[in-house]
Amino acid sequence: MPGLFIVFEGIEGSGKTLQLKLLARYLRKKGIKPLVTREPGGTRLGEGIRRLLLKDGNPSPRAELFLYLADRAQHVKEVIRPALRGGRMVLCDRYYFSTLAYQGYARGLDLAFVEEANDRAIEGFKPHLVVLLDLPVRVALERIRGRSLDRMEQEAFSFHERVREGFWAQARREPDLFLVIDGTRMPEEVFQEVLKGVGVRFPEMAPLLL
Amino acid sequence: MPGLFIVFEGIEGSGKTLQLKLLARYLRKKGIKPLVTREPGGTRLGEGIRRLLLKDGNPSPRAELFLYLADRAQHVKEVIRPALRGGRMVLCDRYYFSTLAYQGYARGLDLAFVEEANDRAIEGFKPHLVVLLDLPVRVALERIRGRSLDRMEQEAFSFHERVREGFWAQARREPDLFLVIDGTRMPEEVFQEVLKGVGVRFPEMAPLLL
Repeated sequence: MPGLFIVFEGIEGSGKTLQLKLLARYLRKKGIKPLVTREPGGTRLGEGIRRLLLKDGNPSPRAELFLYLADRAQHVKEVIRPALRGGRMVLCDRYYFSTLAYQGYARGLDLAFVEEANDRAIEGFKPHLVVLLDLPVRVALERIRGRSLDRMEQEAFSFHERVREGFWAQARREPDLFLVIDGTRMPEEVFQEVLKGVGVRFPEMAPLLL
Repeated sequence: MPGLFIVFEGIEGSGKTLQLKLLARYLRKKGIKPLVTREPGGTRLGEGIRRLLLKDGNPSPRAELFLYLADRAQHVKEVIRPALRGGRMVLCDRYYFSTLAYQGYARGLDLAFVEEANDRAIEGFKPHLVVLLDLPVRVALERIRGRSLDRMEQEAFSFHERVREGFWAQARREPDLFLVIDGTRMPEEVFQEVLKGVGVRFPEMAPLLL
């Protein structure tokens, strides 16, 4: 299957990064070599932006929005577009849905403008599937309590609630695009749901996912 | 005069930075302490963005646009707004007019979107005056030939022509906002024009500028 683009989304501590890695490892065993990438980051410019965003810069909400968009524009141009055009499968940890959830729904920036700006950044490269790992904020925050938290993860509880709601709002609006998975269970159980869901959405892949 | 905001614009090698410094020095002698700032830069975040833009990052045109906007949003919030609200005079080397000229007119990104995004970044903080130093691209490039050029300055001749045209288009649209000055003459002559022009636009400052 050429040029399949799957995005993993969720609040901090939802397990999306782990699930993405599990899927990538699984696919490699089946002979498919997916391109694994992430936002922010994924390009040399993006890694610089990631540092400004999460550690050094203390950006205002609007500056933060524009930094994520800059990262995304570069990422699409340098990484996502060439990979998809070359027929590769792309697995991406966060994409424009996060910007709508965090900067739009949670920080309160104008949703219509965030959407339009996202459209400019991605130049038509929508994913084929968004795997949304959903779980209560309390459960997610307990999971990451042991880690050293970056700026985003230190945000207040209510902020993460709004982010979760923002993801839900997007999933309700585009149910065919989203695969919403209960992220409260053990990682291996969640992963079985991911495999099952991907197989249902892409029947031509189902034989690979058994 | 509280909260006066003057921006200097022009192509590379136009002398805008020198003229801004001359005006700042002149005002200091008269007992006014202007805040001197610049874009990109002017904040801690902005200096990081400036490095990504001009040296390290090799951003795509869209990524470049969003980086300038991020820089601007932070600059307005941290520097320009507090200074103006505190009654200070602000002299700024480049502002959103440069983004329209470079990323819009010269790189060809959608002008309406660039304008809307600029509006989001500045949150209403338009300057009171834009001093546009205008001169032929050939003359400007000869001046900076001696310097080591950053990425923007190395762009092709035709690019700089489009930037110059972009500034002109904005000046034609808002003639009351712009003071267009012939930048081909000697710096001291140009500076006399700047002083005269500022005095005409702000009669209450005229006694200071004699």
